[in-house]
Amino acid sequence: MTESAETLLLRSDRNGVATLTLDRPKARNALSIGMLGALRDAFADLAGDDEVRAVVIAAEGPAFCAGHDLKEMTAFRADPDKGAARFAELFDLCSAVMMAIPALPQPVIAAVEGIATAAGCQLVASCDLAVAGAEARFATPGVQIGLFCSTPMVALSRNLSRKAAMRMLLTADFADADEAKALGLVNDVVSAGGALEAAQTLAAGIATRSAYTVRVGKRAFYEQLEMPLAEAYSHAGRVMTENMLARSAEAGIDAFFAKRAR
Amino acid sequence: MTESAETLLLRSDRNGVATLTLDRPKARNALSIGMLGALRDAFADLAGDDEVRAVVIAAEGPAFCAGHDLKEMTAFRADPDKGAARFAELFDLCSAVMMAIPALPQPVIAAVEGIATAAGCQLVASCDLAVAGAEARFATPGVQIGLFCSTPMVALSRNLSRKAAMRMLLTADFADADEAKALGLVNDVVSAGGALEAAQTLAAGIATRSAYTVRVGKRAFYEQLEMPLAEAYSHAGRVMTENMLARSAEAGIDAFFAKRAR
Amino acid sequence: MTESAETLLLRSDRNGVATLTLDRPKARNALSIGMLGALRDAFADLAGDDEVRAVVIAAEGPAFCAGHDLKEMTAFRADPDKGAARFAELFDLCSAVMMAIPALPQPVIAAVEGIATAAGCQLVASCDLAVAGAEARFATPGVQIGLFCSTPMVALSRNLSRKAAMRMLLTADFADADEAKALGLVNDVVSAGGALEAAQTLAAGIATRSAYTVRVGKRAFYEQLEMPLAEAYSHAGRVMTENMLARSAEAGIDAFFAKRAR
Repeated sequence: MTESAETLLLRSDRNGVATLTLDRPKARNALSIGMLGALRDAFADLAGDDEVRAVVIAAEGPAFCAGHDLKEMTAFRADPDKGAARFAELFDLCSAVMMAIPALPQPVIAAVEGIATAAGCQLVASCDLAVAGAEARFATPGVQIGLFCSTPMVALSRNLSRKAAMRMLLTADFADADEAKALGLVNDVVSAGGALEAAQTLAAGIATRSAYTVRVGKRAFYEQLEMPLAEAYSHAGRVMTENMLARSAEAGIDAFFAKRAR
Repeated sequence: MTESAETLLLRSDRNGVATLTLDRPKARNALSIGMLGALRDAFADLAGDDEVRAVVIAAEGPAFCAGHDLKEMTAFRADPDKGAARFAELFDLCSAVMMAIPALPQPVIAAVEGIATAAGCQLVASCDLAVAGAEARFATPGVQIGLFCSTPMVALSRNLSRKAAMRMLLTADFADADEAKALGLVNDVVSAGGALEAAQTLAAGIATRSAYTVRVGKRAFYEQLEMPLAEAYSHAGRVMTENMLARSAEAGIDAFFAKRAR
Repeated sequence: MTESAETLLLRSDRNGVATLTLDRPKARNALSIGMLGALRDAFADLAGDDEVRAVVIAAEGPAFCAGHDLKEMTAFRADPDKGAARFAELFDLCSAVMMAIPALPQPVIAAVEGIATAAGCQLVASCDLAVAGAEARFATPGVQIGLFCSTPMVALSRNLSRKAAMRMLLTADFADADEAKALGLVNDVVSAGGALEAAQTLAAGIATRSAYTVRVGKRAFYEQLEMPLAEAYSHAGRVMTENMLARSAEAGIDAFFAKRAR
């Protein structure tokens, strides 16, 4: 079965919010090379799209995303190198897609219903924000099939405390939506079936803000996270000075005073 | 209106606990240059004051602290450079004040009633410990006025999980006291109006300990946090050996055995 | 009283799970030089033992572990250097033991009943996972005797949020089992007296997995935690490619498809 990128990932824009929908429900939206390529291309398009102020990632069908496409990966084993080159390429592609999310100028919100497992769980962890329906469930079950979720754990361990991340990785147990919230993997839990709407509402709120302000803030957030305290402050101080000199802050502060004066 | 440092920030000492009170309630205790200077000077005094074993930061009036003084900042725009130099100076001063808190030899406890927003929220995040009254509320709402809370996020993102910090920064939504506790921004929630007393009680307990021991421990805490594991242990091991050789540990351990023998 | 390593630390293996039991209940399982040496030797043995797939650390008697052996340490003060050399040696040994836990190929699960204080609390924090009985309690009370828990805080501050860790270190207050779970210090709370069984059940589940997979995953977990994001992904991608080429993943994925086809 060949699938064009178009049938794998849908995009629909409304009021500054782009919703990407993983649309390979029969394969539980597995991150095949095709799907990863479609995500990479979609993120590249979004990065240059000034009309889009926030992004939602949702999924078609009962599963959000079941991770890598094991069938496709297994076929690589027929290569003369037993798949070594293509496995490496696949994981590089996947990591590039995951790192593209914090690098995107717009905030990205996952809207999760059903299971988000392995690289699917990583996709949620990689988003800036996440909303889950009450029946969403999260796991990194690679250990069950002898393939530890080593790349997913990069994102997972930057969201959860150590022992909580270790537990998911070592046991393959599911965390339900409420647990995922308590652990820091998602921001909100809404009624089952309500994640997309809730994520779009959150996105719509962000879309009313200055795109410039959101962009510089999001970029600085991830940059300063990896710096020691003094360096982080020095960097953030420069960002804030530039932000203050930009039109968005001048207009925003004027409007704030005008509103207060009324 | 000119204000002397004295009228901006009150200090009262009792039993080894110094309480600093932000006292510009009409401006919701905004961190004007005057207020930041008063804090800087107060911290410099405290750093050399052997009588003080713990510090509480409280506030006069219904708001804890509303962040930067936007009116003052807006006036900088009249400068030939549109304020660039004075904005940079202000953020540098503010960052220096915030970094002075972990650098202080004494533990610092925020006592929060009412709102703590933007740099006011950062002030809470920068303290070693924090107690909130039940009606305290926390936000980093800069995005609303086009000025992302980039320097506040340095402290915020070192207290909260990533998605929780991102959510506050991107949405400007308030976290109430219970949420702030669940997220790691405050240690305790007490009855509305009870934060100051609770913080002072906590401080009074710390003030009964060896000042030397608390000082070396607090310093090592922040130092080792930014080191990889092996280096952190090597550093902490040296600190603990020195501590063991100090009079405070010798006396403390002797007292421990004496008490047990009774 | 001289004690051989054998009487200090028991080891019993069953179905791939090795249970180490601190067995110095009268001294509340204090981490004397003898006990630390016994742990170091046990970890060295386990590191090379292919039969063991997971490790549980439990304790005999009402206390899990009360930290360093203050009586032994006090005796060092009679040395010409007032104990300086032997204190340094002791903390080095202790840190080596604590760091041996994340370095061990097998996951290590603490089973805590009663108190885990100071270096005993550090031992729990250093484990990959932890289960607590409902009456377990945790503290880092060194500040009470003038000896700040500086080495314990290295592990503690890598499990808990900053203010939560600071609070335990500065106040010496106990966190009960539920609090310890909320803070990230333990994974699960079970009925009082049930921690050992629960930890062994968790370990038994892990012991059914590929030892190779668990080993590479655990090692990569701690390695990538200390790297910036891009480097972490690059490292984890290499690990995952190697893992995919290993027999365990090939067999595991084949079994997964076979099961699905049934």
